[in-house]
Amino acid sequence: MKLLITGGAGFVGSRLATRILKDGELNGQKIDKLVISDQFAPPSSLLNDPRVECRTSPLLAQCQSLHEDRFDGVFHLASAVSGECEEDFDLGLRSNLDTTRALLDALRKAGNAPRLVFSSSVAVFGPDPAHPMPDIVTDDTLPMPQTSYGTHKLMCEHLIADYTRKGFIDGRSARLMTVTVRPGRPNGAASSFFSGIIREPLNGETAICPVLDSVSHPVSTPSLTIQGLKAVYEASRVSFLGRSGMNLPALNVTVKEMLQALENVAGKSVRSLVKFELNERIASIVSNWPKGTNSTRAVRLGLHSPKNFESVIEEYIADQKSN
Amino acid sequence: MKLLITGGAGFVGSRLATRILKDGELNGQKIDKLVISDQFAPPSSLLNDPRVECRTSPLLAQCQSLHEDRFDGVFHLASAVSGECEEDFDLGLRSNLDTTRALLDALRKAGNAPRLVFSSSVAVFGPDPAHPMPDIVTDDTLPMPQTSYGTHKLMCEHLIADYTRKGFIDGRSARLMTVTVRPGRPNGAASSFFSGIIREPLNGETAICPVLDSVSHPVSTPSLTIQGLKAVYEASRVSFLGRSGMNLPALNVTVKEMLQALENVAGKSVRSLVKFELNERIASIVSNWPKGTNSTRAVRLGLHSPKNFESVIEEYIADQKSN
Repeated sequence: MKLLITGGAGFVGSRLATRILKDGELNGQKIDKLVISDQFAPPSSLLNDPRVECRTSPLLAQCQSLHEDRFDGVFHLASAVSGECEEDFDLGLRSNLDTTRALLDALRKAGNAPRLVFSSSVAVFGPDPAHPMPDIVTDDTLPMPQTSYGTHKLMCEHLIADYTRKGFIDGRSARLMTVTVRPGRPNGAASSFFSGIIREPLNGETAICPVLDSVSHPVSTPSLTIQGLKAVYEASRVSFLGRSGMNLPALNVTVKEMLQALENVAGKSVRSLVKFELNERIASIVSNWPKGTNSTRAVRLGLHSPKNFESVIEEYIADQKSN
Repeated sequence: MKLLITGGAGFVGSRLATRILKDGELNGQKIDKLVISDQFAPPSSLLNDPRVECRTSPLLAQCQSLHEDRFDGVFHLASAVSGECEEDFDLGLRSNLDTTRALLDALRKAGNAPRLVFSSSVAVFGPDPAHPMPDIVTDDTLPMPQTSYGTHKLMCEHLIADYTRKGFIDGRSARLMTVTVRPGRPNGAASSFFSGIIREPLNGETAICPVLDSVSHPVSTPSLTIQGLKAVYEASRVSFLGRSGMNLPALNVTVKEMLQALENVAGKSVRSLVKFELNERIASIVSNWPKGTNSTRAVRLGLHSPKNFESVIEEYIADQKSN
């Protein structure tokens, strides 16, 4: 089979690509070719795989000729992140809405109704004066995005549902939880600190927590997120249940619990490297996010949340050692 | 004030324009200029009003220079209808999604944060295997569109909410119920027969009802719909309550009740002109629509539904006599 991963050089994308190449198959089909589309080059381990072809340019431009590939499957992960979208409204619309639309039209033009998994986000949820948000949002909760990023994700969910209804693609939207602990440096996402307050102390560096420690948030790990994306791809249409976006499982955890887990795993001195400095901009974005989620649909697909935050930290430490 | 009505030559648009010109003001502001944008020319009564300027071309092309107008307010009613969108996927996306996006960008470019009322639709609701639809949908019901038309309307609601959140416009989305009885000929809307089965018999013509008489549907009249659009425009942001789409009030009525009302108003012989011929395509679209709606938000704005279907028919008869 011929697979496309957009945003395939990114954090989740490159891990998903690595995993699928290692498996050698997806949904029982042998991987003959894996196209990684990204603005940046992927890690050399992916570049050196003979099955991999990299396309390093904006996806929107690539979509012009993408129908010629006739991909069997697509993971559409490419996206401008929440902080970027708030700073640059046009960039957000172009990267998230226009690019997804162009991708869908290219897949439709290909004419082979490829399977597509779209990485939506827990950021589709938010409070509105007409619709207060429950503390724990479910698959049935009315999404009311409070950021441009969440707005684009929700709009794309519905666009994908309609292309699917028409038979142009076989699309499924999975709402990713905040994936933590991310390696590397902070990115433009407002949720970036959820990784920073663990990663930096483990590296012996001070970290700033921009929100109160009572903030609760639904998180998952890279490996469980990748497992979720694969399961959503491999699910039958009937078992995916409908065309609406599905929450992936999450551990609902407070910052305080995260830091306690850090202390449990790495000790008091590491935990003490986290300082609190309230950042109004970030706190305001985060205050509009759900405190927790659950997903009966994901559980029905055999997916589960991290068992505790210690295991989340341990996955990160093991991942760093293996690289 | 300078007002724009897109789709202003249409059934609802031309009546809204007529009403606002008669009032001479909107939200306490004198109407100095009313621009009617439509693919067709409006009625001569509107053309002859010195305050009216008509722009008869596709709205998408008009949006290029629309920022120069610096409108104070906009009613955005222009739309491809449900039947058209199902038949021509690209036309639907262009007319409904691309055009709304271009309009919003033009209003944003104008820089004066104009007030905008968007005519969304009860068609945003539908059943999904993951989310069964309640018989009576409310403002809190999860929208899950089952047509391209409904998909575009919902996507535009969220786009408008985000442009509003950013302060580019002051937007409000009102979900119109099926407006009946429409004069003239059947149009491309799957709901067209809801008018046809009343209008044609009153004209002494046979009408075909393409669905069973047990079908229940939320309907409103032209005058109550226009009253609703005006009220949504004139509402303060606080009283509109949030940025999500709001259902306008409806009378929830079955085809059987509609025909009984026709008999009550016009007699048995008129009612007998309605024949039943099941149309699978239309019945399938309609089966995915709500059986009824209610809207606590609209009621809070002082709006109400038609008191019975006899009053709906009587409004049509009076309207025809006055023209």
